[in-house]
Formats: sequence, structure tokens, C-alpha cells
Amino acid sequence: MRTVWLNGEWVGEADARVSVFDRGLLFGQSVYEVAPVLAGRIANWPHHAARLANSLAMAGIADATDWPAILPELVARNGLAEGRVYLQITAGTAGDRDFLLPAPPPAPTRLAFTQPAVLVDNPKAATGLRVVLRPDLRWQVRTAKTTQLLYAVLMKEEARAAGVDDAWLVEGGVITEATSANAHIIDARGVLVSHPVDQGVLPGVTRISVMQIARAMGLAVEERAFTPDELFAAREAFVSAAGSLVLPVVEVDGRAIGTGTPGALTGQIRRRYIQTLFNCEGLAPLP
Amino acid sequence: MRTVWLNGEWVGEADARVSVFDRGLLFGQSVYEVAPVLAGRIANWPHHAARLANSLAMAGIADATDWPAILPELVARNGLAEGRVYLQITAGTAGDRDFLLPAPPPAPTRLAFTQPAVLVDNPKAATGLRVVLRPDLRWQVRTAKTTQLLYAVLMKEEARAAGVDDAWLVEGGVITEATSANAHIIDARGVLVSHPVDQGVLPGVTRISVMQIARAMGLAVEERAFTPDELFAAREAFVSAAGSLVLPVVEVDGRAIGTGTPGALTGQIRRRYIQTLFNCEGLAPLP
Repeated sequence: MRTVWLNGEWVGEADARVSVFDRGLLFGQSVYEVAPVLAGRIANWPHHAARLANSLAMAGIADATDWPAILPELVARNGLAEGRVYLQITAGTAGDRDFLLPAPPPAPTRLAFTQPAVLVDNPKAATGLRVVLRPDLRWQVRTAKTTQLLYAVLMKEEARAAGVDDAWLVEGGVITEATSANAHIIDARGVLVSHPVDQGVLPGVTRISVMQIARAMGLAVEERAFTPDELFAAREAFVSAAGSLVLPVVEVDGRAIGTGTPGALTGQIRRRYIQTLFNCEGLAPLP
Repeated sequence: MRTVWLNGEWVGEADARVSVFDRGLLFGQSVYEVAPVLAGRIANWPHHAARLANSLAMAGIADATDWPAILPELVARNGLAEGRVYLQITAGTAGDRDFLLPAPPPAPTRLAFTQPAVLVDNPKAATGLRVVLRPDLRWQVRTAKTTQLLYAVLMKEEARAAGVDDAWLVEGGVITEATSANAHIIDARGVLVSHPVDQGVLPGVTRISVMQIARAMGLAVEERAFTPDELFAAREAFVSAAGSLVLPVVEVDGRAIGTGTPGALTGQIRRRYIQTLFNCEGLAPLP
């Protein structure tokens, strides 16, 4: 049984509970982060911490939890070698349901748990993902990582019903992102094209590394939205996310992307990214 | 201390807790209803039940809780004469965090509680509400009543910061609704204009009665979107919601609506609606 960290306590996962009056449950006033764990170490923490601070500010939650003092112990207590750490902070339990927070606001609810997952030897890295396109009807404050995730859940279920791995979301004629990952292409010219993260999509922590690695490989990088037509004409397509690293996309709406097999450049980016993670020291930033 | 109903048990509110792995908390996969209680009786239940069924279907939650067997006892146990009953159903606790539901899906988490509130002698009925206009950046699946409410929370906080009562939301040049109520005007011609509920806004249960009452009063009713300019030129403006019934709006973005005092027709609709509620028999439908 996993040990969960909840508001300063270490508790068995079956005992980790929050009030039904928690604002995360009643209002979705709640933010989260997922970071990869490789060789028992948490990667990219400074980037996650920076985004978390932005998400908290947007969601109107004041919190100063010392996560670097908690998460490594969480990983150690659960004996996690490879997988993810998940943390969530809600606006707390105000005692009754009211859209407006009382003054002073309640203490935030803070929780963290681990998830074992095969990140490096993920078989999808060899086969590639098959995805479908769906309209992006999510809320528009997407630069913060909040738990307003129902639409992502529904689109992931639609993808499963369609017999594929995921959905990529389309808004105003362009691809925004995958249901829980940033979306990228190597276009017909060999340029890496990725939606800018200043609006409309989540600023992905893994995406930061992908951009650095692509530039180091000598690839031209354009941070702009791309259309479904550009996607269908692309040489390669892939997703990046902390929970799944970098994974190739080989089919969209039943049409093969490029050769219909995982792209060579995508594979190189993935391998370099994993190497970067293994080279990282504990909670240290990327070089 | 209130008694809360949680998954078939009657528990003190301090003991009403759900797992941190609940999909309502992790993903916002969760729907709810709020119904008014007057003279110890729950009003409009059949309309709430019909909407709840739609919300559950949209959110991918299968549940057949017999609420009419639970809610009257909840009201009685809490000695509630006037206020609200709140119920929420989440997709349950799957044991670990995964966007995809396992097969078979977990049992839904079901909870209900009461809130005392002054609905009839609400002082805002005499003074009217002051509101501000804000962009509507919510997700677009608004016909279901889900807990994707963070944007409503944030806009309600913005309204408070602006020293007013609420925000009305604007999308594509038209008013959609208030943060947690349907928005209506009596326009310059004396016509009741209200955003259609087939898309973009929540199908309000109280709104159903408002439309019936307005027609019975001989008012012309147009179910179409209206613009901020129409709002500023309107004779009256008001909101309808199960938790606050019908309340006049007297000021928008610092500009008086009509005479800047609660409208006469709004007051008449409110009084007739309250009379209708008192005439209702228990969980019986509106006549």
C-alpha cells in the first residue's frame, strides 16, 4: 500500500481523505503538478515549481509548502524507482459551500502521492501513438495547471472508444494540444513546430527540454500554431509530457503521419531527453 | 452540526470525507444540483432530476440514487425550514489516478447536504444586485451542471474586488449568464429576453418557472442572446437561480439599469415564483 502525504502527515492511501466541503471537490479550485521519477530521483523540479507558483496565483490559492523537503522522502518511503510524483493543492475547506472564500481564507489542502510507471521502456515509444482530432471545448485559462480536467477525461474516453491512444484538440482551425500533453510536429520542411505556450495551452515542463534539445540538434524551431493540414503533411509528430516523456504519434484520424512509423528525429529527441533526466542531480535544474 | 448524507450513510459534517483519489477531486469528473427549500419542502425536484440525468450522461457517470427517498429525510434531520439542498455525484474512487476509467467503473461517490439561507426575505430583493461584465472563458459544455466551477469562483472574486455583487459573462459580443445564475432583461420594448439554454448556458430550473410566469403575466418572451448594449438600454434586468430565486439587477459596470432601482416586473415575477414554490406539494412538479 502506498504512503500518501496529506497536509503534513504520512498516511496509508486508504486513509488519505479530504472533507466533502473541500473547494477542490466542490468548485475545482485546485492546481496540480506531475513530475517524472527516474532512478529514484525527481526530475525538472525547478520548472515544475515555477509553473506551480503561477497556477496557484491564477487559482487564488496562497501556499508555500516546501515540496523539495517532502517529495524526495515520499519517493523513498514508497520505494519508487521509476514513475511519477503527483501533488495537488486545493483552496481548502471553508466549512460550507460558498463561491466566495471567507476572510481569512482556509488553509489549503495539500497532498502528494507516487505512481509507478514504465517511462523509459514504454512500448508505445516503439509502436507510436494513434490519435483522433476533437474540438477543443476546454476553458480558456489553460496556462495554469488546474484540475478542470473533465473535458480531457471525456476526450480520452472518446479516443478509447475509437480504438486509439489519445485525442488532439482543435480550436479555431489549429491544433492546441493533446488531452494531457503538448503536441508537436516536424513539418514537411523538417522544422519543429509547436503551439506557443503564452496562451491556449499548458506551458509544458517537458516541452522546455524538447525545445532545448531540438535546437541543440540543429533543428529549426517555430513556436506557432499549426493546422490539421500541416499535421497530415508532417514528417513526424509527437507528444511531450512529464508523465510519459516524449512519445511518437504515427496516425491521426486514421491517416498515417510520415511513414506511419515512429519518426527518427522524435526518437533522437526522446533518447536525448531521457539521457538529460538521468544526468540530472536529484532536484537540480536542467543544465 | 449538520448531518451529511454520504454514500448511503448519515454522518456528521466533520466526518464526511472522500478519498484523495476521488475523480471529483482529481479530475473534476463530478456533477451537482442545488434545489431551494421553502417551508421545509424541496421545490422543483422533477426539473432538477431531469437535468441531473443529462449531466450524469454527459460526464460519463452511471448512477441511479433514489434522491426523493433521501433528500426529504436530509432536510428533516437538519431541521431546515428555508435554504438549499445540495447534492453531488462524482465518478468515484478508482484506486489510482488515471484519466481513463477502469472497467468496470468504480461506484460513484454520492453526497448531499443542506444550507440554511434567507431566500424570501433576502435584502438583495429590495436593493437589487450590482454586477460587472467579464469575458466568458469557461469551458463550452455548459448545458451540464458540473463542478468545473473555478472560473465562476474567480469571477465572483473579481466582482467582490470591484465592490459589486456578481459578474455577468460576455462571449462573442453577447451576454451568456451570471457566474451561478441565468441572466435576463426586460428590454426597451418591454420584452423579456433570455439566452437560449440549448447551448452556452446552463438550463436553469428556476428559469423554466420564470418563463412560464412571464408568459402568464402577458409578457412577450424571446429566447435569444442579448448584447451589453441591449442590457444597458433595458428597462429591467434580473437573475434566476435555485439558490437565490429571482433577484433584480440595478447596476452593470457602474451604469444604472432602467431607473437604477429593482424593476416592477422583476418584483412581480419574483413574488409569483415564491408563491408557486409555496403552493408546491413536497417533491411534486410545478403545476
